[in-house]
Amino acid sequence: MITNVDHIGIAVRSIEEVLPYYEKALGLTCEKIEFVDSQKVKTAFLKVGDLHLELLEATSPESPIAKFIKKNGEGVHHIAFHVDDIHSQLKKASAEGIRLINEVPFEGAKEKLVAFLHPKSTHGVLTEFCSQKD
Amino acid sequence: MITNVDHIGIAVRSIEEVLPYYEKALGLTCEKIEFVDSQKVKTAFLKVGDLHLELLEATSPESPIAKFIKKNGEGVHHIAFHVDDIHSQLKKASAEGIRLINEVPFEGAKEKLVAFLHPKSTHGVLTEFCSQKD
Repeated sequence: MITNVDHIGIAVRSIEEVLPYYEKALGLTCEKIEFVDSQKVKTAFLKVGDLHLELLEATSPESPIAKFIKKNGEGVHHIAFHVDDIHSQLKKASAEGIRLINEVPFEGAKEKLVAFLHPKSTHGVLTEFCSQKD
Repeated sequence: MITNVDHIGIAVRSIEEVLPYYEKALGLTCEKIEFVDSQKVKTAFLKVGDLHLELLEATSPESPIAKFIKKNGEGVHHIAFHVDDIHSQLKKASAEGIRLINEVPFEGAKEKLVAFLHPKSTHGVLTEFCSQKD
């Protein structure tokens, strides 16, 4: 079951350059900077209510974020839903004909288990499920 | 002050065609369908935790959503932050050099006061402030 939106991923060219907008103009607070090697990204987490904005900066030209920005420019990259059981949630989506990018969840930021649904079967919204590790 | 994310706006070609994905594959519930004449859109609200996904379908080729889809295809259109005082929040953003699409808030969905910041000054994220009416 989806319980809430865990975070909204936002692709940026440079976290350093973008943070003043989020911190000064919006008044949000950056709680954490973290590198996620599996996705070749540097991330910054800003708390808003009970979710986070996750700013994503590529650390390599092969990063999915570098490719996204090359194609689309900066902007919203994905929506991540927190689910209570990521395995059954993936199975349910797959049974409904949704194409999975990851059939097997992997470790994302904050040591969570994450998996993505393909935007071609989610009407253009790259969608992530995430949950605490088993 | 920003208190939470009120909703995430998602541009779709047809709410009717997209709802099965959100309702069956994700298991969310559509709470309300509403027409917002000022934006020439039909909207559907799906509750997730304490925020909503707002599906947006153009009701006219002149709708901002029709133009968005023509340029970008379906996908995330905007992030809306709930603020306690929309007038002071707009003033603060403007003072930090952020370009406002609406200097004066107008009535959006659910009879809320809303105003948008221009994505050119928010690093590609069309950003909405919304609050209860004065």
